[in-house]
Amino acid sequence: MNAERGSRNAEQRGERLFRVPRSALIRMFDFTIDATSGPARTGTLALPHGTVETPVFMPVGTQGTVRALSPNDLRSAGATLVLANTYHLHVRPGEQVVARLGALHRFMGWDRPLLTDSGGFQVFSLEGFRRVDEDGVEFQSHVDGGRRRLTPERATEIQWTLGADIAMAFDHVVPGGADEGVARDALERTLRWLERCGKRHAELRTSYDATSLRRTDPPVEDLQRSVGASCNQTLWPILQGGTHLALREEGLRRILDMGDWTGVAIGGLSVGEPKAVMYDMLERLEPKLPALPRYLMGVGFPEDLVAAVERGVDLFDCVAPTRNGRNGSAFTPDGPVNIRNAEHREDLRPLDESCDCETCTTFSRGYLRHLFVAEELLGLRLLSLHNVRYLIRLAQDMRAAIRRNAFGPWAEAWRRRYLRSGSA
Amino acid sequence: MNAERGSRNAEQRGERLFRVPRSALIRMFDFTIDATSGPARTGTLALPHGTVETPVFMPVGTQGTVRALSPNDLRSAGATLVLANTYHLHVRPGEQVVARLGALHRFMGWDRPLLTDSGGFQVFSLEGFRRVDEDGVEFQSHVDGGRRRLTPERATEIQWTLGADIAMAFDHVVPGGADEGVARDALERTLRWLERCGKRHAELRTSYDATSLRRTDPPVEDLQRSVGASCNQTLWPILQGGTHLALREEGLRRILDMGDWTGVAIGGLSVGEPKAVMYDMLERLEPKLPALPRYLMGVGFPEDLVAAVERGVDLFDCVAPTRNGRNGSAFTPDGPVNIRNAEHREDLRPLDESCDCETCTTFSRGYLRHLFVAEELLGLRLLSLHNVRYLIRLAQDMRAAIRRNAFGPWAEAWRRRYLRSGSA
Repeated sequence: MNAERGSRNAEQRGERLFRVPRSALIRMFDFTIDATSGPARTGTLALPHGTVETPVFMPVGTQGTVRALSPNDLRSAGATLVLANTYHLHVRPGEQVVARLGALHRFMGWDRPLLTDSGGFQVFSLEGFRRVDEDGVEFQSHVDGGRRRLTPERATEIQWTLGADIAMAFDHVVPGGADEGVARDALERTLRWLERCGKRHAELRTSYDATSLRRTDPPVEDLQRSVGASCNQTLWPILQGGTHLALREEGLRRILDMGDWTGVAIGGLSVGEPKAVMYDMLERLEPKLPALPRYLMGVGFPEDLVAAVERGVDLFDCVAPTRNGRNGSAFTPDGPVNIRNAEHREDLRPLDESCDCETCTTFSRGYLRHLFVAEELLGLRLLSLHNVRYLIRLAQDMRAAIRRNAFGPWAEAWRRRYLRSGSA
Repeated sequence: MNAERGSRNAEQRGERLFRVPRSALIRMFDFTIDATSGPARTGTLALPHGTVETPVFMPVGTQGTVRALSPNDLRSAGATLVLANTYHLHVRPGEQVVARLGALHRFMGWDRPLLTDSGGFQVFSLEGFRRVDEDGVEFQSHVDGGRRRLTPERATEIQWTLGADIAMAFDHVVPGGADEGVARDALERTLRWLERCGKRHAELRTSYDATSLRRTDPPVEDLQRSVGASCNQTLWPILQGGTHLALREEGLRRILDMGDWTGVAIGGLSVGEPKAVMYDMLERLEPKLPALPRYLMGVGFPEDLVAAVERGVDLFDCVAPTRNGRNGSAFTPDGPVNIRNAEHREDLRPLDESCDCETCTTFSRGYLRHLFVAEELLGLRLLSLHNVRYLIRLAQDMRAAIRRNAFGPWAEAWRRRYLRSGSA
């Protein structure tokens, strides 16, 4: 498929499934595909706190902070969109506290776009008691052990109160190996919950619109000039269905029939199934996906980003860069490097010769190893910073390769180098 | 005492005890007193990696990193001089590794002046086995438990290899309550060791000078243009004598008789004795001290800085700002604040309204409390950064008050506010 054809197809799909406005003004939450290279696409997503170029990697700020990094670090790493977790912020400090501290953007000192996960994944993945019924999930707080309840309505209200640019629907996630019956059950529940999330979100938007009409979907420039944190938010559905293609296809159809969404997330992958299964699923789903932004939840190892962009995915999030960084593992173009290894003891070279981050432009591998061996806090931050910058540069490189309509050869060359060591 | 008299006295003392060069060029390691206000003085110290205005607070980078802070953080906090620990760097990663990684400045990414403590204090304060004899100290490494030995010569060589701007003599520290016999014994040993440190340091300088004569004491500008990390280093003696004034006076006389030092440190205070005893000792020593830079080792609580500057001290170091910061305790003009307290939960105000650091200009007390309650790494860094900036601003304020010849009233007003809460 050449670039022109890809671009035309994407537009056609966009026309059919989601009305792309024809006005010269970019409208809020619009997604424009700027170029394609096979199924890979690069686009621009308009959000209240700024525009985001895709493919994009979102660093994860679970508790309203990307672990060990400051907002300035994230800006210097080129982050445009950051994820925070509804479940964690609801449990501590509570969404009302966040609201009284100026809503999530002001709270965490981040003035660019934010996305909040709905809490679905967390409730299902955290240890301890939980009970799912039709109404929602009862679970045990990881902080105080107390019983709490999340429902589609509550998850939507909490996210509205937090005020991120993008909220996610509350979903029922099943493990990677779930059989069709279990996956069907979770998919059906997720679809019923999506309806409830959409309804509650529309009510919140309407009640908000009633008090301030002009804040509804104004052009981007207007918004950026005049509007506070919680004024405008879109809700994205999450597709479930486990590893069962037929379920995924049916789920997607039913989601798209439910409304004019501004994006769609693929959940319940990267939860224990083999990577080949995830890649295959993405490949088979891709032709059925609309021109909307496509967010593959929880995915963020370099090789997964490349494989998923190759299969038409636009957005990613993962704790890998910060978690691995805190463990002394750094992404480099030649594969992961464990900075604790003795070979780095007297190595004057930077972690990654090609990297422009503070870590790589200031410190030697020998010094970084010393920080880890001596258990110094600065090491956790410097490797986290580099890893986040690495994934953001990887996304930049992918965008450039797509614009050159050369994603395939680029990806092949990238893999040849990254996987050469066999350590990835 | 008015400014003129103070200034003249300081000059006279300087003339008598240490020749202040009359040339227009500032020579390396020269200290110029720019203004006085009573015994309080503000001056300029010329060091190979830059000039330092005094009074100055040195953040402590024990293992070659000021805990939780990057060199950029330190620069943004206005730090000009940073301390690192010879003992810790000798044990891990070893001074030879530091040298192969470009010596201490390059190693830790800090291009401004550095001072290394000699290891004396650490050897005496760390737990585990140690044995003092005339030759030196045998001790147990806190890293691997292995037996190691530090002598005056070794401590001097290690510091030369590390390459800080200022090295400290290897001393024998006794606890705050040590009786006169014990203190006399440690003083005598410290004086004998000082002789050995001075001899070894002179040899190192000479051997270095032999290979590159023009690098010996060139004018500041020359050095800053052309000279690497380990090219030039001065050695400062440490005065011991416990809480016994007669011993301190005798020790000082004998130190000053031993050479033309470029600075003098007061060690063995703030090691368990009552604060009043330390203040009294400083007050009584002050008239006997030459116009050299005076470094009160290990002191760094705000009230101690003010009291010691009032008594003629110029340099300070302490882990308090970073250690307390990591514990959630922040210095403010109204006394310390414990950010974990529930009262800060929904507080939108910054930690310190008057502070210009990243922490205070970006984040609310409520968010900072959340970071500590949620045990997020960013909290450790943000409070450490603020506390370091607080002490550096305190030193700036003191310099300004001295230049106005109004240190006394300034200190009184400062104390009235800082100690008002009674929580300090």
